[in-house]
Amino acid sequence: MLQIVVAPNAFKHSLDASEAAEAIRMGLESSELACHVICHPIGDGGDGMCQLIHRQLNGRQVTCEVPDPIGRTINASYSLIRDGHTAVIEMADTSGIRLLSEQERRPMITSSRGTGEMLKHALDRGVKHIMLGMGGSATVDGGCGMLHALGVRFLNKSGDVLKPTPKELMAVEHIDLEHLDKRLQECEITIMCDVTNKLLGEEGAATVFGPQKGATPREVNELEVFLKKLSSVVFEETGKDMAAVVSGGAAGGASAGMFALADARLVKGIAFFLELTGFENTLSNADWVITGEGSMDEQTLGWKGPYGVAVRAKQKGIPVIGFAGKVPLKPSPGLLEVFDVLLAIGNEPAQLDQALQNTRLNLQRTAQAIGNLMAASRLK
Amino acid sequence: MLQIVVAPNAFKHSLDASEAAEAIRMGLESSELACHVICHPIGDGGDGMCQLIHRQLNGRQVTCEVPDPIGRTINASYSLIRDGHTAVIEMADTSGIRLLSEQERRPMITSSRGTGEMLKHALDRGVKHIMLGMGGSATVDGGCGMLHALGVRFLNKSGDVLKPTPKELMAVEHIDLEHLDKRLQECEITIMCDVTNKLLGEEGAATVFGPQKGATPREVNELEVFLKKLSSVVFEETGKDMAAVVSGGAAGGASAGMFALADARLVKGIAFFLELTGFENTLSNADWVITGEGSMDEQTLGWKGPYGVAVRAKQKGIPVIGFAGKVPLKPSPGLLEVFDVLLAIGNEPAQLDQALQNTRLNLQRTAQAIGNLMAASRLK
Repeated sequence: MLQIVVAPNAFKHSLDASEAAEAIRMGLESSELACHVICHPIGDGGDGMCQLIHRQLNGRQVTCEVPDPIGRTINASYSLIRDGHTAVIEMADTSGIRLLSEQERRPMITSSRGTGEMLKHALDRGVKHIMLGMGGSATVDGGCGMLHALGVRFLNKSGDVLKPTPKELMAVEHIDLEHLDKRLQECEITIMCDVTNKLLGEEGAATVFGPQKGATPREVNELEVFLKKLSSVVFEETGKDMAAVVSGGAAGGASAGMFALADARLVKGIAFFLELTGFENTLSNADWVITGEGSMDEQTLGWKGPYGVAVRAKQKGIPVIGFAGKVPLKPSPGLLEVFDVLLAIGNEPAQLDQALQNTRLNLQRTAQAIGNLMAASRLK
Repeated sequence: MLQIVVAPNAFKHSLDASEAAEAIRMGLESSELACHVICHPIGDGGDGMCQLIHRQLNGRQVTCEVPDPIGRTINASYSLIRDGHTAVIEMADTSGIRLLSEQERRPMITSSRGTGEMLKHALDRGVKHIMLGMGGSATVDGGCGMLHALGVRFLNKSGDVLKPTPKELMAVEHIDLEHLDKRLQECEITIMCDVTNKLLGEEGAATVFGPQKGATPREVNELEVFLKKLSSVVFEETGKDMAAVVSGGAAGGASAGMFALADARLVKGIAFFLELTGFENTLSNADWVITGEGSMDEQTLGWKGPYGVAVRAKQKGIPVIGFAGKVPLKPSPGLLEVFDVLLAIGNEPAQLDQALQNTRLNLQRTAQAIGNLMAASRLK
């Protein structure tokens, strides 16, 4: 009996990773193929990853009151794993774009402070490790809101404490670390990034992610100026270079800020996730691996989830199938080297919103077809 | 080495059957699969079938002057096969909808006379068999134009000869077969139909195909009245029932007319085509068959081309893959019984016209993916 590991990423705007895995499993099991399916849905730092870790590591959910990106009090949750020693915190649950209406998406005044409050809540619980998922944030504040909550003070040239929003922080000249939460010295912070973008420049947090978060072109420029200023002040006062660190642009520069001022370790989300959830072990007897994501193309090779899955499978000589809502008309040789089989799942020419609605059935149908093909192939 | 027979139908509005086969072949050959590909593009009575027969049987092309559906003189060709004993005539080349502009599509006054002239031209060459492809016609004249060219006279109650258009033929009361071309007694006519619709009623020639040929709702009613009248006069005078014969609705009733008044044999296009082109022989060492069509669904099971291919493959225990631009979101068990693997070829959510433009590359890409999957499956 063939053993098939089903390890998709979320299909953005339609299915989370677990739902996608389930649809593929159902398709395979309804096919003619005699197979054992093992679902191992994945996260690569994007919104939803912490929920997957919570489930796969049997976490305990903790809820607390925190401010959302515009200061409203909300209830948000995080997960305690490893006997409560580790907190798994999804930035998007507290400081996420999905918490805001279209009109509220104004990165000049939104703040990551709520996520900092949640970190403090976890520190109160005595955790020694915090894993922070950075996907889906609403903010471009360089992590200043989060750091402010943890005790860091950003000052203007007169020494006044600034409110931790980009608008106010344009005036930052000094950083006061005296009141930084002491418990952080005993607590490791791992930041799970879903992008490798650095803080500044054309590929930076403001330029690439600002518009998605509601910044006008003018605000993008202002955010860039602010992040540059912040980075330069931080460098002068700590010697740490926010602008140089890989993935420093993740979550509107919050990863760079936490790296420089809270000694956080920045990791590639997918690599960390697969390690944490024992993916090597899942692969041990696999004959095939099926992964997937909403869209798969050259960018997938930049350490997106399916790429991480495929690389590990390939190391073991296991062939990899990739399912996506969208694939290139002409996939590059590089892409086909990583994904032995790359298939789009759509059943007909359709508008995007209709296609998104049909993701579940299309995954199921395509997996069934693949199962039938494998079944017939085995007789040849 | 796997032997794969590639036998697609045309992908309407984008690729003819040969082009589709070629795209699939290229995809398979660019895959990791060690395979021998045999292309056997198919026709099922639809426009383009005669061209395929011409090529596969090494026909000789003959060109003649004929009237188009509105009487303009055009050059059109047919094929002589079997040492010139058999003529293969595509009705669409002479009386086809593609010869008319949008405004010229007026089935009350268009006529199949040109196809009759072409039949006469073939009879002049001494052929003993005529194969007539009925797809893509512009006319709903019950074949009266064609029959008029062959010598049949349609008369009103005063005995006046009527012009062979539905508009004039509404007045038909008698049929004069005295001048019917005598050579037809020595010549077999095989009509290759792409539909099984009968002449009259809700599934009949006027109701189903009239609108596609430009008939207004009112004209659809008039055409139905005309065909009913014609059928009743023919039945009274010859005892042959145009309304009862299966596929009598093909080509605007031309198949029924030719059946009743020229003793033509009506056959299912795909069955006849596969027999004629030696498809059984092509299948003899096949491990897989790949077929396909623009759209595949429950209707495919009504003796469409891919169904004919699949049935023959299944009889030999050969698994069948179907490629289509559009497949049902949830294929029925019946469909999956015939097609082991059914895959849509689109690479992304797209408008129909964009999808049609990408058919070639999408077929190629999907075939490559399938080849890679088969290649990896063989190692399991």
